[in-house]
Amino acid sequence: MDPAVLDFTASLPFDRRLGLHDLKGSLAHLSMLASRSIIGADDEALLRGGLEEIAEEITAGSFPYDLSFEDIHMNIEKRLIEKVGPDGGRLHTARSRNDQVALDMHLYLRDECKRIDEGLQHLQEVIVGMAEKHEDILMPGYTHLQRAQPVLLAHHMLAYFWMLERDRQRLAGVLERIDLMPLGAGALAGTSFDIDREQVAAYLGFSRLYENSIDAVSDRDYLVEFLAFAAIAVMHLSRLCEEIIIWSSVEFGFIELDDSYTSGSSMMPQKKNPDVAELIRGKTGRIYGSLIGLLTVLKGLPLAYNKDLQEDKEGLFDTVDTLKNLLPPLSGMLGTMVFCRERLAEAVDDDYLCATDMADYLVRRGCTFREAHQTVGQLIAFCRQKNNRLKELTPDQRACFHPALAENIEALLDPVKVVEARLSRGGTASAAVAEQLQKARAALSAHMTK
Amino acid sequence: MDPAVLDFTASLPFDRRLGLHDLKGSLAHLSMLASRSIIGADDEALLRGGLEEIAEEITAGSFPYDLSFEDIHMNIEKRLIEKVGPDGGRLHTARSRNDQVALDMHLYLRDECKRIDEGLQHLQEVIVGMAEKHEDILMPGYTHLQRAQPVLLAHHMLAYFWMLERDRQRLAGVLERIDLMPLGAGALAGTSFDIDREQVAAYLGFSRLYENSIDAVSDRDYLVEFLAFAAIAVMHLSRLCEEIIIWSSVEFGFIELDDSYTSGSSMMPQKKNPDVAELIRGKTGRIYGSLIGLLTVLKGLPLAYNKDLQEDKEGLFDTVDTLKNLLPPLSGMLGTMVFCRERLAEAVDDDYLCATDMADYLVRRGCTFREAHQTVGQLIAFCRQKNNRLKELTPDQRACFHPALAENIEALLDPVKVVEARLSRGGTASAAVAEQLQKARAALSAHMTK
Amino acid sequence: MDPAVLDFTASLPFDRRLGLHDLKGSLAHLSMLASRSIIGADDEALLRGGLEEIAEEITAGSFPYDLSFEDIHMNIEKRLIEKVGPDGGRLHTARSRNDQVALDMHLYLRDECKRIDEGLQHLQEVIVGMAEKHEDILMPGYTHLQRAQPVLLAHHMLAYFWMLERDRQRLAGVLERIDLMPLGAGALAGTSFDIDREQVAAYLGFSRLYENSIDAVSDRDYLVEFLAFAAIAVMHLSRLCEEIIIWSSVEFGFIELDDSYTSGSSMMPQKKNPDVAELIRGKTGRIYGSLIGLLTVLKGLPLAYNKDLQEDKEGLFDTVDTLKNLLPPLSGMLGTMVFCRERLAEAVDDDYLCATDMADYLVRRGCTFREAHQTVGQLIAFCRQKNNRLKELTPDQRACFHPALAENIEALLDPVKVVEARLSRGGTASAAVAEQLQKARAALSAHMTK
Amino acid sequence: MDPAVLDFTASLPFDRRLGLHDLKGSLAHLSMLASRSIIGADDEALLRGGLEEIAEEITAGSFPYDLSFEDIHMNIEKRLIEKVGPDGGRLHTARSRNDQVALDMHLYLRDECKRIDEGLQHLQEVIVGMAEKHEDILMPGYTHLQRAQPVLLAHHMLAYFWMLERDRQRLAGVLERIDLMPLGAGALAGTSFDIDREQVAAYLGFSRLYENSIDAVSDRDYLVEFLAFAAIAVMHLSRLCEEIIIWSSVEFGFIELDDSYTSGSSMMPQKKNPDVAELIRGKTGRIYGSLIGLLTVLKGLPLAYNKDLQEDKEGLFDTVDTLKNLLPPLSGMLGTMVFCRERLAEAVDDDYLCATDMADYLVRRGCTFREAHQTVGQLIAFCRQKNNRLKELTPDQRACFHPALAENIEALLDPVKVVEARLSRGGTASAAVAEQLQKARAALSAHMTK
Repeated sequence: MDPAVLDFTASLPFDRRLGLHDLKGSLAHLSMLASRSIIGADDEALLRGGLEEIAEEITAGSFPYDLSFEDIHMNIEKRLIEKVGPDGGRLHTARSRNDQVALDMHLYLRDECKRIDEGLQHLQEVIVGMAEKHEDILMPGYTHLQRAQPVLLAHHMLAYFWMLERDRQRLAGVLERIDLMPLGAGALAGTSFDIDREQVAAYLGFSRLYENSIDAVSDRDYLVEFLAFAAIAVMHLSRLCEEIIIWSSVEFGFIELDDSYTSGSSMMPQKKNPDVAELIRGKTGRIYGSLIGLLTVLKGLPLAYNKDLQEDKEGLFDTVDTLKNLLPPLSGMLGTMVFCRERLAEAVDDDYLCATDMADYLVRRGCTFREAHQTVGQLIAFCRQKNNRLKELTPDQRACFHPALAENIEALLDPVKVVEARLSRGGTASAAVAEQLQKARAALSAHMTK
Repeated sequence: MDPAVLDFTASLPFDRRLGLHDLKGSLAHLSMLASRSIIGADDEALLRGGLEEIAEEITAGSFPYDLSFEDIHMNIEKRLIEKVGPDGGRLHTARSRNDQVALDMHLYLRDECKRIDEGLQHLQEVIVGMAEKHEDILMPGYTHLQRAQPVLLAHHMLAYFWMLERDRQRLAGVLERIDLMPLGAGALAGTSFDIDREQVAAYLGFSRLYENSIDAVSDRDYLVEFLAFAAIAVMHLSRLCEEIIIWSSVEFGFIELDDSYTSGSSMMPQKKNPDVAELIRGKTGRIYGSLIGLLTVLKGLPLAYNKDLQEDKEGLFDTVDTLKNLLPPLSGMLGTMVFCRERLAEAVDDDYLCATDMADYLVRRGCTFREAHQTVGQLIAFCRQKNNRLKELTPDQRACFHPALAENIEALLDPVKVVEARLSRGGTASAAVAEQLQKARAALSAHMTK
Repeated sequence: MDPAVLDFTASLPFDRRLGLHDLKGSLAHLSMLASRSIIGADDEALLRGGLEEIAEEITAGSFPYDLSFEDIHMNIEKRLIEKVGPDGGRLHTARSRNDQVALDMHLYLRDECKRIDEGLQHLQEVIVGMAEKHEDILMPGYTHLQRAQPVLLAHHMLAYFWMLERDRQRLAGVLERIDLMPLGAGALAGTSFDIDREQVAAYLGFSRLYENSIDAVSDRDYLVEFLAFAAIAVMHLSRLCEEIIIWSSVEFGFIELDDSYTSGSSMMPQKKNPDVAELIRGKTGRIYGSLIGLLTVLKGLPLAYNKDLQEDKEGLFDTVDTLKNLLPPLSGMLGTMVFCRERLAEAVDDDYLCATDMADYLVRRGCTFREAHQTVGQLIAFCRQKNNRLKELTPDQRACFHPALAENIEALLDPVKVVEARLSRGGTASAAVAEQLQKARAALSAHMTK
Repeated sequence: MDPAVLDFTASLPFDRRLGLHDLKGSLAHLSMLASRSIIGADDEALLRGGLEEIAEEITAGSFPYDLSFEDIHMNIEKRLIEKVGPDGGRLHTARSRNDQVALDMHLYLRDECKRIDEGLQHLQEVIVGMAEKHEDILMPGYTHLQRAQPVLLAHHMLAYFWMLERDRQRLAGVLERIDLMPLGAGALAGTSFDIDREQVAAYLGFSRLYENSIDAVSDRDYLVEFLAFAAIAVMHLSRLCEEIIIWSSVEFGFIELDDSYTSGSSMMPQKKNPDVAELIRGKTGRIYGSLIGLLTVLKGLPLAYNKDLQEDKEGLFDTVDTLKNLLPPLSGMLGTMVFCRERLAEAVDDDYLCATDMADYLVRRGCTFREAHQTVGQLIAFCRQKNNRLKELTPDQRACFHPALAENIEALLDPVKVVEARLSRGGTASAAVAEQLQKARAALSAHMTK
């Protein structure tokens, strides 16, 4: 190959991050080759020593990467031969780069999924902590970014807990699809050596094998599935960050972010910009992009391995890094953000927020829901016109709309009571939220004992 | 609202397909309202009668859809009131359109997932059938669309079986995320009526509830997850269709498609165009598009319900229809396609396909893999230069490259023997494929007994 | 073909919208065939009569679409033969469905681009109108959704004018790429009839021809370019709608939307939901989706026509409709929305908004920008700590931070003066905005005289 | 900021590539500041000297990047102050990072667009060269990957010329949208300094200014437009590469790629894998991904600058690099690839390829196109059944299908004559292709004189 072309086709600049996983896979392969007498015990010891030295070099940062060898696999093999002589060339017996790289990617992503799951667990814990800490704060619940009904702040935050919980379930699904050992598929058809794939799987902690060698070297669907998991997860986080950005506007003023998570401006020294939240919202783009990128690569690709598949890595690595690196700042930002109780109290002291309860009250007094709905609508239109608050109307004024409104309806106009009335399971009353919190904690424990 | 604006915001043209699911959900809600005495038994009977009549009208195609009522929910409520009088307005007690539409979508997609799963099962069966029927046919296995090693046709086809198997596992994951009952969340905060969400869930066959009312009305992640499943599945099918298109070219000539699945040309009467395969490959685009479409809608959306969420439907419906409708023609096309044994036999009679085995042979004779690889490379270069086939070389000529090649190496040059040597688990030898087929059949049975 | 397969492959359900454009193209083709004596004058008259009758049927809605003929082209040909007898079969002389459908799509999209351009022009006019009407209103300019500097409302709105202006430039680029006449390319290689493609082009108002017949039938890049234009345009509109949604929150309260463009809630009668703005923001998803959808279809497709290309239509049609239909409600909503002067006045009465000007003042007094920046930062930190407004500080207090601050700095703290100081071209001072408005009007006129 | 958060939000690792463009912009700004006496002549000289030294450091690779300063702009300012003292802080007068980074991106992308345009020009020249060199070679033209009609190889290749020509037109459109100078917009509202934006624009070679300061700092649509251009261009290239991959299969055997552009296999030494073509096809994914990524970032973002916008860079840079780097190997591969004349000659010696011409012949003899089409269809079906070639039929046999077929129809069965008959403009006859080549060369010249 032309050196310029080699540059174009080389994967070393990005697949070098697979080095240690590649060595782990090679050690498993080596061990199996020896136990099946495909290579001798002497060779095994020799090669094992070489591989272990290389692992130390990689860990120490002293491994001499050589761009004239196109990928990490060739770099390691070449280094091995430098260390142990031509017998290093025996390691690749009964193996092809196609199944080797497939194995490396499985090992790599399995590790990263676990770390991401830890980050998600921590974020869930932070949210639970916020909910527990602020259990008495009310805020407006919004639909269409219009105040709709008062809710507990804890309830609002816990909505995100459950999204993350489903994200973790999806991640567990990804891990199931990762849990298939590809080595032994060779280039595409298996091998004529009498290998023991079960042994390799056991050595590496896989519980299942690919049952078809062509599938084993062509399968990238677990990578797409991971990217889809990541896209959904970051979508959830983009929603949370959007709220944080809106809440930290002067106009909302619901929260104050800790200085560690905001920046000033080069020209406007008074600003406290929610950079972290904005950046996480923005990072949604690159993850969606990587998802569609890999789907595009795979579209219409005939079996088995094609060079296009080399393009499975950079978008995936970027997504792994992005997700892994945004979780700690997000957790930190949430854990340190301060709610402005006064502003939130003012915001819920908006008696239109109680319209639903007034309608429900009329239903209990015999109205159909539709009548009740209309009646309350007229009452509110009247208040708007008069520029009155609902609580300022006299019983007589209220009675014009419906006789039952002449009674004492104070409870309907008190946001705390309105919240406390929503005792339905999953509702926003304190008791319901306490039950929800218990379920959330149980879910966290269940993950940890798995 | 302005009528033109109403047109713009109306969802009836597409959400009318939810009619029967909406009624099913309403019947469950009604039953619960009555059992909790939120409405009386008389009203229950009255409303149930009305709802059942409406279901008949929808089924019969006689339901009078009215575009001046923006969505299917309002259409049904209006019709109910027409039928039973103002008491029809009681049905919406303790419910909001937000949780109602969430329930409808869960019910709808649950049904459709099951149908799609059946279509996938059928496709898997067709593939197994093809594998069983053609177990003696060899074909070249390809990498980079270059012939690489001979494989059993059955082995090649079964690669797709396992992709579909993982697709079905993913679909089962989607069904788990669908299995959450949202009703009772109200607009976003729950309800002050003393409802029984567990009863509704049991009535409708859900095993779990949303534990947070805000999450219940905002969650669309199960829809994205479905779209991601569909994108991966159609990606797999696009790969299969690409192969079918290539195989049915005159140059490959590996298969002949049944006339029912091809078209002629308006200008070139001799053509047999693989339209079905091309169209399925092309339909990958719309499914990827719908996936990215919904992800875009959800990006950065604050809680809880926003009108943007109405855009969750058309792309989903289109994906459901697309996937459901392409499976039968695909199964039909595969089931009727004829393999051209002669062309396949010619194609595997290419002794370069045996290079790997020759290298492996040298490894068994003591070479390292790298030496063996080089030796075979030189041998093949020699043949190319001389325009000889490998089997035409004399033992002496072969010996020039390595002494072990002087021996009888016929077995290495016979594609059948080469195939049969790949006995490693998941490999292409007949025995290994037979074992694979058994596992495939077991997987199918496992799905059916679930 | 199997009828179920015919259903799967048929395009009539969506390509019927091309009927009139197909007829227009056929009339041009017919006229050319006659003028080159490829068909006789009698036949021309006969066929022309038939085609014109069909056009009337389509316009009147009485055309008998027949699903057993797969597409609109076959439907029209069949109808023509019904009307004029077997000579109807002469129309397809020197033509193929491949170049015919390419022509139809060019004609269709050319018309739709013009309508969309009119809609964009109208929207720009509405924005200019808003800017002219509200030229004295100030509002906070935001970065990071934090108030940054006061600006004229007119200036803020005009930012969207220029985005739309670039969108229209891009649309003009699309029209240039559409302005290539494909007919005469035949199935892919041209035709042996002595046709006159220039005549057809002139008849239909095209200024250029495809110079390569294979390209003519394979090219779909003008469709992708249109979708990319649409994606960028709707992205701009999604930004505007996001602002409208935020501004119409109670917390911002900057605007009140007209009731015609908002909806109430089934459960919360007090709500005025900005449905139109939300829905437009949401429609971004489907347009992005259609863009990626068509890009996916085209990826890796060999020349020339492939059935996959049939998938070029539905996403395009949907995007045309979406964009065309959202512009009038958007223009209407903007044109009727009312700005709440009081709330905006309160919002700019925030002396931190003047920090930049104070820093600039210090620069004029000899500070480097960085020193000035730090000094103002300290001053503001001091005010925050003391809970003072800047204007409440005494000259002596100010002098502690920098001697120049002891002078009369009232002008720096008056938002109107701060705005008026930004006289740089493109800046927010009234005079600069007036100049900008003039340029905007000139741009509008330039479009209209084109 | 917390150091971990600083890491998360820092852009230095990727925006350092903007260093020289940043300096160029700063020199223009500095020159203007001096000419308007906003800074003194001494300061100008001092700062200019510092900036020039920094440019040398960056060029030489000796610039001391400091990750504790978050971006390239702060790094350069800090270095300037190190070099020239606190007066370095004067450079930022009348400027903000928002308009500064906007300027840098305009300058950067303008340069890169020009380089990409050169790469596209070179690729077009290679294609023209191939067409000229092989003007006598015929090949089958394909639809549905089925042989359809014989065409000149030159004609087929030139189809790509015109796609690239449109790509370059689109790129010219991007350059028009880039040709807007943003500096002077400040953070978002303009500046109170008496700057001269026209001077800066002239200095830097821009012909127009942003007329609205908010738009100037928020606009990223030129980046999206570039990504859309790139997506369409790489889509075209993916089609070409797909063909190259198919053509270099053993089954097609139409071309032989030069060894410099292929790779062998670690396990199958005989393989010549079209790695370059596959990798280019695969790189389509990342470009589509970056397009959707940036569109996602921008969706629903309120004005003006938000931190999300920092995510505009990496996908763009990657796309610039990808496109720039794939053009030379692609040109090289095309320029060195060898066509296998024998295989191509065999492939066009397929008399079904002449069916269209036979139908056209019958039309000339009075048949309607539809009759002719049917007649030829029956003739071909007859040959298939008899396993005869068309040329083997006797005149009498042919006459059974239509009397006109009894005549000498040799010319209809000779692929060369069939090709030469397609003289319609843009058709595949030699004369038409010669004219096309002339137009192609004219287009190339037109680009060069621009």
